[in-house]
Amino acid sequence: MINKAGRVIPDTITGITKVKPYAGPFAYVPEGRLVGPKIRASRPRTEKLLKSIDQAIDATGLKDGMTISFHHHFRNGDYVLNLVVEAIARKGIRGLTLAPSSLNDVNDQIIPFIEQGVIRAIETSGGRGKLGKLMTSGKLDKPVIIRSHGGRARAIECGDLHIDVAFLGAPCCDTHGNINGIEGKSACGSMGYAMVDAAYADKVVALTDNLVAQPLHRISIPQTHVDFIVELESIGDPKGIASGALRISRDPRELLIAEYATGVIEYSGYFKDGYSLQLGSGGASLAAAKFIKEKMLAHKITASFGVGGVTAPFIDMLDQGLIQTIFDTQDFDIPSIESIKNNPRHQEMSASFYANPHNGGAIVNNLDVVILSATEVDVDFNVNVITDSNGTIMGASGGHCDTAAGANLAIVVAPLMRGRLPMVLDRVNTIVTPGETVDVIVTERGVAVNPLRKDLIANLQQSGLPLMSIQDLKKIAYDLAGTPEPIELSDEVVGVVEYRDGTIIDVIRRPL
Amino acid sequence: MINKAGRVIPDTITGITKVKPYAGPFAYVPEGRLVGPKIRASRPRTEKLLKSIDQAIDATGLKDGMTISFHHHFRNGDYVLNLVVEAIARKGIRGLTLAPSSLNDVNDQIIPFIEQGVIRAIETSGGRGKLGKLMTSGKLDKPVIIRSHGGRARAIECGDLHIDVAFLGAPCCDTHGNINGIEGKSACGSMGYAMVDAAYADKVVALTDNLVAQPLHRISIPQTHVDFIVELESIGDPKGIASGALRISRDPRELLIAEYATGVIEYSGYFKDGYSLQLGSGGASLAAAKFIKEKMLAHKITASFGVGGVTAPFIDMLDQGLIQTIFDTQDFDIPSIESIKNNPRHQEMSASFYANPHNGGAIVNNLDVVILSATEVDVDFNVNVITDSNGTIMGASGGHCDTAAGANLAIVVAPLMRGRLPMVLDRVNTIVTPGETVDVIVTERGVAVNPLRKDLIANLQQSGLPLMSIQDLKKIAYDLAGTPEPIELSDEVVGVVEYRDGTIIDVIRRPL
Repeated sequence: MINKAGRVIPDTITGITKVKPYAGPFAYVPEGRLVGPKIRASRPRTEKLLKSIDQAIDATGLKDGMTISFHHHFRNGDYVLNLVVEAIARKGIRGLTLAPSSLNDVNDQIIPFIEQGVIRAIETSGGRGKLGKLMTSGKLDKPVIIRSHGGRARAIECGDLHIDVAFLGAPCCDTHGNINGIEGKSACGSMGYAMVDAAYADKVVALTDNLVAQPLHRISIPQTHVDFIVELESIGDPKGIASGALRISRDPRELLIAEYATGVIEYSGYFKDGYSLQLGSGGASLAAAKFIKEKMLAHKITASFGVGGVTAPFIDMLDQGLIQTIFDTQDFDIPSIESIKNNPRHQEMSASFYANPHNGGAIVNNLDVVILSATEVDVDFNVNVITDSNGTIMGASGGHCDTAAGANLAIVVAPLMRGRLPMVLDRVNTIVTPGETVDVIVTERGVAVNPLRKDLIANLQQSGLPLMSIQDLKKIAYDLAGTPEPIELSDEVVGVVEYRDGTIIDVIRRPL
Repeated sequence: MINKAGRVIPDTITGITKVKPYAGPFAYVPEGRLVGPKIRASRPRTEKLLKSIDQAIDATGLKDGMTISFHHHFRNGDYVLNLVVEAIARKGIRGLTLAPSSLNDVNDQIIPFIEQGVIRAIETSGGRGKLGKLMTSGKLDKPVIIRSHGGRARAIECGDLHIDVAFLGAPCCDTHGNINGIEGKSACGSMGYAMVDAAYADKVVALTDNLVAQPLHRISIPQTHVDFIVELESIGDPKGIASGALRISRDPRELLIAEYATGVIEYSGYFKDGYSLQLGSGGASLAAAKFIKEKMLAHKITASFGVGGVTAPFIDMLDQGLIQTIFDTQDFDIPSIESIKNNPRHQEMSASFYANPHNGGAIVNNLDVVILSATEVDVDFNVNVITDSNGTIMGASGGHCDTAAGANLAIVVAPLMRGRLPMVLDRVNTIVTPGETVDVIVTERGVAVNPLRKDLIANLQQSGLPLMSIQDLKKIAYDLAGTPEPIELSDEVVGVVEYRDGTIIDVIRRPL
């Protein structure tokens, strides 16, 4: 069948109970009730502390074929996922589904265990490097399921993704199982992704290198959700968890893109006192933060709230009173972690509150402006952030399609070319975010507004920006670099890209 | 049948699907999964703000026979429950079940609507005054169901109490539906009871007299749970919501009881650095707070945490560093509300985190010491806090049985006599808290330790307290006042007292 995004979706896909094709960003209206978490009945003075990961695996009753989850707040500093998978492998448990909120290069270490059959399926936000290649290779028992952050929260809450055991890296954990991410040597800031796993997994194990006897004063994940606690020497490498504040780009192309994106915001009609914004963590987004700040100061405009993935430039705006409050699912650098720890206006939120389309209104619904990056865009404004020009998985869905659907103004920034490859195409290899939710494409050579947004086109006439049609942008790219060769793909489906509502927006086929 | 507390429970009770007799504080082990809340799918820029309570009732689809809920954080200052029930009555909707977290005297105003059939059943924590009399009268369609705070959270989460529409008084609410209890003229502090209703009700309406345009910086109930918002001139009378700090009792009998209770704590074996405690809001409890503070200062002991129902003496201990952190479901006075607003060590918690027996460990499970009051106690250490000496409902279950079951040391304080009536009896009229969870009874004439607690009896030998058997205490009371006449009761069951786990610990029969 062909879905609303124009993609051919097989009628049946291994591992998918019922293939629901994407039908438009809000076409699918769910009914019924969320899944109920398993009932616990913890008695007073139950001892949750176990001696080792091994003991915890035994205590959870983990068995062949179950699903395990992890959070990716430790990013490239994570030790937890690798340690747990290794311990599971030693026990001879096999055929697991791995369902972390995302994967990082550091997790390449588990590749041998995937090859040995300990893990036979993956459901996550995306993959990079060797893991991305492995996902694309078709070596797993069924296609990888790629979900956005909001889509994953939805899937967990409605039962599409049932987690048997969640293993949570806990920067700070008390002996009753209360957890926060702000204290200790492995502090990562927000625990937003882990909150959903903790609320719904059948069994929850906290792994901590900062066990404290007294109840926490700040609780991100409550003891009522935690079954077992294991104390480890170290759950992460602080250097990999958070960097110092990133330096703003000096790349003239990124700076130009950032300047254009800022111009789009300024003239969009949304740049008013009390507006709201989310910025990405890419180079152009970070540079845009600086320009936007200058515009806000010049026009005496403050934002009512900001949404992150949080980085230092956002904290700077919060501290200067340019943003009233920040809602935060994840922190990328040390200034952000310090801020969520110390500034009460910097609020932690769960992935469901952030972006789940099937609740009473995620915060993305309240966004005016979001700046998003892209690997490829196409003349229908579709965006690919998951596969590269060879068709290999090398990125993650993240909050891309969630924020694009929610925000009044979704700006996608991308270079027109990468090396000799055009990034504005007739047709992206993989659709993650459908064009009907993308409002503006900004490149260093020109700015294209989605024809659906006549209001925006009108507003931007006065901006002085190099407006052009998306077809013209593509033509410039193709004229410079030639028409790109299509990727040769097999029929084998190795990945399923779920839209945030659980429908299938695209599949990833194995490159030949 | 006769339950484990020795009470005769009818095999069938109107309105109870399956009568499960109480079998011991932890005998019932639940299985399966919690109920799943209804799936919402709020689109971006959905307008939640409605013009009136009437509009909100229409929008929720409220129909005859449904169940509505309210929270009682506004105590005797609450306008919300009365306004909503009145509006419902005007619409001609009838046969509702009223399921507030508790009821106050101010709610006597709804009695005409009960008599008219708008409300035909009640499930709550208790009742006082005219409402208590009405509940005891048998005029409702089925017996009132009395639940503890933890038991109510449990019942909501497992589906025993299905709430169709929750109406939440919101001291501060933004236009997306985020709520807190700490800002505005009707500030009540913690919103702990309302959190559970908001998470599970099919429809949630926020009623506020403090609607703000910008997202809140402190969120107790998230926008993801809220369907509709109504702005009202006033949702409560601040004078009724919170008093100033209560003056410590000067009643010599209460002071003596408080002194004895403090002695019990001091010599119990639990009075160590890092211990934890909950104090009630009654006169003797408040006085005990003062004495306990003195002992803690003298022995250089600090508590790792306190649990409340919070009052000013607790805040005083927090501010002086004698308590490291407070977990709070409800605030009783202005100093407590100010504290939860301004002191990050003063943490809000939901009723489920507080006391639900069927989760991964409520905070009551971590308690060392709790001081509880009582209407009557008996020689089996059973406690009645719900019916008076005429058999009429005049109190509330609250967190009584929850904390008694959870704490290492549950101390019940009560005067030996009230007027000419003994309060230590052969048999309490109604059991709310089973004797096997009560450790010590403290009266002004003597202190009785539960014979089950040989360790405590040994520890208290050195205390100098007037220790005696509970039989001796009763004898003193009966010798002074004569053996009380039994209450003459009909066979008609007008109330069901659920134990926190959902089993039936007692029934309330209509007095003749």
